[in-house]
Amino acid sequence: MKKGIKSLQVGHKFKGFMLIKEATKGVTSNGKPFLTLILRDMSGEIEAKLWDAKPGDETIYTAEQIVYVTGDITQFRGKAQLRIYSIRPAQVTDGVQISDFIEKAPVEKEVLYEKIMEAIFEMENPNIQRIIRAFVKEYQDELLTYPAAVSNHHAYMSGLAHHIVNMLHLARELCKLYPDVNRDLLYAGIILHDLAKVKELSGFVTTSYTLEGKLIGHIPMMVEEIGLMAKQLKIEGEEIIVLQHLVLSHHGKLEWGSPRPPLIREAELLHLIDLIDARMNTLNRALEYVEPGEFTEKLFALDNRSFYKPNI
Amino acid sequence: MKKGIKSLQVGHKFKGFMLIKEATKGVTSNGKPFLTLILRDMSGEIEAKLWDAKPGDETIYTAEQIVYVTGDITQFRGKAQLRIYSIRPAQVTDGVQISDFIEKAPVEKEVLYEKIMEAIFEMENPNIQRIIRAFVKEYQDELLTYPAAVSNHHAYMSGLAHHIVNMLHLARELCKLYPDVNRDLLYAGIILHDLAKVKELSGFVTTSYTLEGKLIGHIPMMVEEIGLMAKQLKIEGEEIIVLQHLVLSHHGKLEWGSPRPPLIREAELLHLIDLIDARMNTLNRALEYVEPGEFTEKLFALDNRSFYKPNI
Amino acid sequence: MKKGIKSLQVGHKFKGFMLIKEATKGVTSNGKPFLTLILRDMSGEIEAKLWDAKPGDETIYTAEQIVYVTGDITQFRGKAQLRIYSIRPAQVTDGVQISDFIEKAPVEKEVLYEKIMEAIFEMENPNIQRIIRAFVKEYQDELLTYPAAVSNHHAYMSGLAHHIVNMLHLARELCKLYPDVNRDLLYAGIILHDLAKVKELSGFVTTSYTLEGKLIGHIPMMVEEIGLMAKQLKIEGEEIIVLQHLVLSHHGKLEWGSPRPPLIREAELLHLIDLIDARMNTLNRALEYVEPGEFTEKLFALDNRSFYKPNI
Amino acid sequence: MKKGIKSLQVGHKFKGFMLIKEATKGVTSNGKPFLTLILRDMSGEIEAKLWDAKPGDETIYTAEQIVYVTGDITQFRGKAQLRIYSIRPAQVTDGVQISDFIEKAPVEKEVLYEKIMEAIFEMENPNIQRIIRAFVKEYQDELLTYPAAVSNHHAYMSGLAHHIVNMLHLARELCKLYPDVNRDLLYAGIILHDLAKVKELSGFVTTSYTLEGKLIGHIPMMVEEIGLMAKQLKIEGEEIIVLQHLVLSHHGKLEWGSPRPPLIREAELLHLIDLIDARMNTLNRALEYVEPGEFTEKLFALDNRSFYKPNI
Amino acid sequence: MKKGIKSLQVGHKFKGFMLIKEATKGVTSNGKPFLTLILRDMSGEIEAKLWDAKPGDETIYTAEQIVYVTGDITQFRGKAQLRIYSIRPAQVTDGVQISDFIEKAPVEKEVLYEKIMEAIFEMENPNIQRIIRAFVKEYQDELLTYPAAVSNHHAYMSGLAHHIVNMLHLARELCKLYPDVNRDLLYAGIILHDLAKVKELSGFVTTSYTLEGKLIGHIPMMVEEIGLMAKQLKIEGEEIIVLQHLVLSHHGKLEWGSPRPPLIREAELLHLIDLIDARMNTLNRALEYVEPGEFTEKLFALDNRSFYKPNI
Amino acid sequence: MKKGIKSLQVGHKFKGFMLIKEATKGVTSNGKPFLTLILRDMSGEIEAKLWDAKPGDETIYTAEQIVYVTGDITQFRGKAQLRIYSIRPAQVTDGVQISDFIEKAPVEKEVLYEKIMEAIFEMENPNIQRIIRAFVKEYQDELLTYPAAVSNHHAYMSGLAHHIVNMLHLARELCKLYPDVNRDLLYAGIILHDLAKVKELSGFVTTSYTLEGKLIGHIPMMVEEIGLMAKQLKIEGEEIIVLQHLVLSHHGKLEWGSPRPPLIREAELLHLIDLIDARMNTLNRALEYVEPGEFTEKLFALDNRSFYKPNI
Repeated sequence: MKKGIKSLQVGHKFKGFMLIKEATKGVTSNGKPFLTLILRDMSGEIEAKLWDAKPGDETIYTAEQIVYVTGDITQFRGKAQLRIYSIRPAQVTDGVQISDFIEKAPVEKEVLYEKIMEAIFEMENPNIQRIIRAFVKEYQDELLTYPAAVSNHHAYMSGLAHHIVNMLHLARELCKLYPDVNRDLLYAGIILHDLAKVKELSGFVTTSYTLEGKLIGHIPMMVEEIGLMAKQLKIEGEEIIVLQHLVLSHHGKLEWGSPRPPLIREAELLHLIDLIDARMNTLNRALEYVEPGEFTEKLFALDNRSFYKPNI
Repeated sequence: MKKGIKSLQVGHKFKGFMLIKEATKGVTSNGKPFLTLILRDMSGEIEAKLWDAKPGDETIYTAEQIVYVTGDITQFRGKAQLRIYSIRPAQVTDGVQISDFIEKAPVEKEVLYEKIMEAIFEMENPNIQRIIRAFVKEYQDELLTYPAAVSNHHAYMSGLAHHIVNMLHLARELCKLYPDVNRDLLYAGIILHDLAKVKELSGFVTTSYTLEGKLIGHIPMMVEEIGLMAKQLKIEGEEIIVLQHLVLSHHGKLEWGSPRPPLIREAELLHLIDLIDARMNTLNRALEYVEPGEFTEKLFALDNRSFYKPNI
Repeated sequence: MKKGIKSLQVGHKFKGFMLIKEATKGVTSNGKPFLTLILRDMSGEIEAKLWDAKPGDETIYTAEQIVYVTGDITQFRGKAQLRIYSIRPAQVTDGVQISDFIEKAPVEKEVLYEKIMEAIFEMENPNIQRIIRAFVKEYQDELLTYPAAVSNHHAYMSGLAHHIVNMLHLARELCKLYPDVNRDLLYAGIILHDLAKVKELSGFVTTSYTLEGKLIGHIPMMVEEIGLMAKQLKIEGEEIIVLQHLVLSHHGKLEWGSPRPPLIREAELLHLIDLIDARMNTLNRALEYVEPGEFTEKLFALDNRSFYKPNI
Repeated sequence: MKKGIKSLQVGHKFKGFMLIKEATKGVTSNGKPFLTLILRDMSGEIEAKLWDAKPGDETIYTAEQIVYVTGDITQFRGKAQLRIYSIRPAQVTDGVQISDFIEKAPVEKEVLYEKIMEAIFEMENPNIQRIIRAFVKEYQDELLTYPAAVSNHHAYMSGLAHHIVNMLHLARELCKLYPDVNRDLLYAGIILHDLAKVKELSGFVTTSYTLEGKLIGHIPMMVEEIGLMAKQLKIEGEEIIVLQHLVLSHHGKLEWGSPRPPLIREAELLHLIDLIDARMNTLNRALEYVEPGEFTEKLFALDNRSFYKPNI
Repeated sequence: MKKGIKSLQVGHKFKGFMLIKEATKGVTSNGKPFLTLILRDMSGEIEAKLWDAKPGDETIYTAEQIVYVTGDITQFRGKAQLRIYSIRPAQVTDGVQISDFIEKAPVEKEVLYEKIMEAIFEMENPNIQRIIRAFVKEYQDELLTYPAAVSNHHAYMSGLAHHIVNMLHLARELCKLYPDVNRDLLYAGIILHDLAKVKELSGFVTTSYTLEGKLIGHIPMMVEEIGLMAKQLKIEGEEIIVLQHLVLSHHGKLEWGSPRPPLIREAELLHLIDLIDARMNTLNRALEYVEPGEFTEKLFALDNRSFYKPNI
Repeated sequence: MKKGIKSLQVGHKFKGFMLIKEATKGVTSNGKPFLTLILRDMSGEIEAKLWDAKPGDETIYTAEQIVYVTGDITQFRGKAQLRIYSIRPAQVTDGVQISDFIEKAPVEKEVLYEKIMEAIFEMENPNIQRIIRAFVKEYQDELLTYPAAVSNHHAYMSGLAHHIVNMLHLARELCKLYPDVNRDLLYAGIILHDLAKVKELSGFVTTSYTLEGKLIGHIPMMVEEIGLMAKQLKIEGEEIIVLQHLVLSHHGKLEWGSPRPPLIREAELLHLIDLIDARMNTLNRALEYVEPGEFTEKLFALDNRSFYKPNI
């Protein structure tokens, strides 16, 4: 079972460095000020209470500050909480940095990049290949660092590229099993499907939605990007419509945000591969913190189911 | 009550010119060939049977051919059918033309154009005004001739512009009643919301869906068009996102094809005005063929309800 | 942006008169009694805590009492709360009265009455006119003071009449645009549709549902009222059934409480006008407390959507 | 297995008297006129074709005419059809009458009446008893002859009273099992719940919906009737609201036409007893025409399920 | 109105014996340890706070310990809470035992057993009779002591048998009213339908779900048991399939956990009888704690409805 | 594009051997008998009309008879129909046999068997391995010949084994990508999940549902089989519950017939692999009969979508 703040039980003591994600000031029923901090390490987050806040503390303990904390784990309304005994900002001499507290994909981004380039290299249709290559070039930095979501699946640094590379792995195998599938379309759909997340999300440190993300969403944004790129590269024809359809339909149903359901074989397959990798990522991450014979917490992205880890 | 093929009852004789919309060849149980024609006039369509088809008839009686027909109205499985006694292709000397058989908006397209230009003229935000003006210029011909749908509401020549102008009329009044509403946004949303129907549909004679219409749909197509136009006119900023959102959300719900629900006041209002004009158009057209005290046929676009025409 | 309790931020001080809407006694974990008050002004409500309650305070600070309060705004579980420093009941010399704390329609009730009478005057069908006139006479006081709901849209004094008058304004315009619409029916439907709210709700000060409201609801209650009134005025015929149908179907769908969906053109239009005015009222009121560039809180009556106020 | 037209198989000959329910004129593909008749006996209906219709036949063979027919059973699109060889109108000397062809409840209406009076006699609350007695008196004839539905459950002469009496039987037993149940309310709810069907439906011969039935429906109609009756008998108080609620909520859910769900114990029980008797009546009637080891046709009123008749 | 912890109001004092159902340790914002106990008596449960917990208290006050408590009823977030003044474990001399705190069926288990045997005795099909007799013998102890659910209906000792016996009572009456119903099947379905709850649930003291209960559920478990028992008794034939179907379909719909809906008359009836007895049990228990003129709390098992207790 | 009856167009002549799947007798409007035959070859089925049926023909042309037919393809209500000119039963000398007309998996059953054994061989948990081996042995013949469905996916001879082997191929690859997945559980789930189809379906020639299939269904049937097999092999413990859960939950949702949703990682993956292989099989088979640039017919098993075959 993995270690970290997420694995601590009520009654445990804690001492170590944490990153502040959010900080809010409050006042107790006795009129004393206190701070509520959301602290995180690689394993997850915890709500923490600094009951004896001193004047000025709220200007020191703010988002993205690293702190050294001692305290113990209590429980409030059924959730673990950290009661802080002592706290101080990290100093240069502590040798800690923000990236120590941000979860990353288990594969290096250089490897992820190579695997994506490999898939592009295998493509046979020159129009599709040119478009995909141009997109990967244009968004290379973001593609290799952004998460695939704010929470839920692949919500970690390089999560977007990690998700793409996993899907390409599955796609390669499915093309062997179902040889009629058009590999170029499937690969292209996989690389593009979530690419506009680099515009829908704010970044990889404290990820949130941009205004465009909230009002338009990554699916129509990417359809537009494909249209613009095709104009720019002077590519015309059915390939463009089909690529747009692949992105447009990858959520599978209207009520899940795709204004058209998959109407092409490769679009259906893209949707299903996306489903598998997203769900397995969510599940694997949840099961890491659970002992055999126990159930996970309720997983929102999996219809609020609690999953059992068998003793087998 | 309106006249035309739609108003004829079982047992009536018919004689006159009609436009062939579709033609299919069949073989009777006695092995004799026959033709099934879908004939239309301004009031609607009827299935017709030419039981004694001669060799070669199927090459004469094809879609978009005008014919002179005599026959009588029978009933098949609860629907009116025309049994053809005689048929011949129309000749130049008959003085009939395709446009005589195609329903048109009750307002001339020049008037519709003027009303749209009037609304643009009232706009105060220069960016929004420029974009809308550019779109109306680019698609002027199609905007003034296309229907707003294949069937359902405003499914007639210039139906798209007629729908827009009705909605502008309502919008003007709503802006008086709710003065906080941003008139520029509402007008712009109305003019753009269905504009990509000129790419989603094939034209105004025998209207069908294009491939792009089927695989992408007019909503994401228009979002893309707005992005391209903004690039072309070098306009940037929140106006573009907001215009795209207005178009994107105008179907009101994810399951109705809007990947985002309305999240801006004017988007909500646009959706509701669209609903009113679409439903009233469908209802008014159906009630024209019904006597007081009777119910219409089931209206698919209104959840299959039959509407009653009161004796009041 | 509007002023009032609803616009105060965490950390702000407050001092002024407020109306107590609800009062509950509690005991802290130290065994000390405290009072939880729901206080309101014209802008809305806030939960307030009087931590140092003295014996007898619970008999002084009760619902519908005006109080002078000082305190500051804290936050509890994400919602603003008022921590009370001092409190005292208002006195005659303070010159404040309950109506100062109750939101009212932005139009005087005399004006609202006149507009309703104007619509009745325009009616041509004598039966319909007589019935509507009789209803307005019978319920004149309540009609002009009741809100249209407990919370949600037009939940303020004279909200019911304000809602009716807005709808009549829209109806007048729609009858111009769609001349086949029967104006008498539409006007009559608008005036009657929510009239039984004067029996479903308890009044306009601290509005709640009556037993009849909870067990029967304003729709079937109004259908019954129309039947009784027709009997009393000795009016018979289709008008009665049609008026009852207009009221019965105005929620639009069975799952929204209409046992029949609209089956008459004017019933469909009534439902849509009601939708527009209810939603615009809710939206406008929510956006008043939000700065451009921000989102409103989640609006329950609009499917829990948060709306964005553009910088345009 | 029961006998009658419903039990005949393809290939069988038929000869006997039938009642015409509907008659429509048609024209064959050879231009010859024919008649489509819906014929019925006690067991059900069959579509019949009179291919060689003579001029004038359509004025002889009309709805509610009894005819003597010979023919054989064919199949058209999966449904049995009667091909008529000979047909003639019944004559006085034939000794047949309409009531011979209309299904009736298996219990005499005098017995049904007595059982209803017995239940009223058992009531203890004088207000409830007076109201119910008054209703039974006012609608005695219709109550004892009307069916409970156009098709579906208890769709036969005296079906309404038969349904009520069955429900009273169950109610008596349930009051023993759950002694806290208020028997007066439950009995009253049972007698009134469907009573307005005598206004919703046209009668018991060729039953259809009235205009009021279509636009208002029996539930709000009965709520109104209770209000009127209470006024007439000068009864006031909670009994009236509760009786109205019982009728209003007896369909159990908003989407099934009850604007309020059951909110009183007896209302919940009324809904469930209604469900049991309606479903058992539908099921029993369908299973009568099926041999052990077979499945019934799909039953619309039971979610289109086909039921199996076991060999046990 | 019934007495017990569930009937106490805010402000009341309490003193008496209670059973601890759950105990959790917490730490206040001042760093002091406290205990949260869920205490129960026959009427229900209450959350209790022991604010001044001494070291070691958490090892004394654990689940299934009886305690003598004094305290008063406060309110936290809208729910009653018991603030403990003093607490001590019960001693032998107190003369209390766990069964004093556990709700039991209102009928003795010997009587329940007799009624079940009576129904078995009435059966005529020897195969069905043998199977049912064998099951009752095998699970006699659990059948007579287990509850029918963790919460919701019949959630008390011998609740399962009580539920069965009530259903048998109704079934006997329904067989009289609908004589075509196969009584053996209906009785057998009633006795078996929830029997696997003795494996799905952990017992009758602090009832929870077993692993098998969570992963498989009582319906498929019972289908399997019937198959095994048939093998053991060497019974073959349609009876087995039909009994399995009765159990399988008794939840009525796929979304309620029945992989097949009822497809046999007796299965439909079994589902409806189950519904009636479950709902009436829930309702009766909720109404016991409510005065006439009041509404119950929201009942989860009845779609979150609050029921009204009339003044009649 | 594939050849066969399914690929013929209206107007085409046909001559060749076909297998009769169903035969029904009819009578024309002129009173002449005719036969409706459902004929099939490897590519699919067609409705055929033998208009001039001679006496006795209905005893010759019955289900599972091979016939030599000439005729031409007509169209009836939008579907292709074969009008028969001549027909005769096949004779021994024709050298045709039933298996020539029944579609088979594209892989030999010996190869399928080997692949399944290979997967069993890789298992490490001895209990799971023993159970799976025992099942494959017990149902070897049926497992290798049965289809996986009546219509829809893998509805051909050896379709069940083909489906299993495809899923095992995918599973092997997924275990590489997600190394925490328990391969034994996943393989076992795949082999067992649809195995009870050999009892749910009647065979592979003219496949229909058995009574047990209709009343119980393959999911609960297989759960029972696992319980029996475990008893027989004297295997106890969590493996059995987990195997039963894998089978029970493989339809993914209650409304799709799984009384529990997947609650174990391998169950979720099993459901998704099943979905992929089922949908791809349906899609691939439909696209074989469609030219690039065209849409398939509506596919019931894919939510009635028509899929497009791109020109790429």
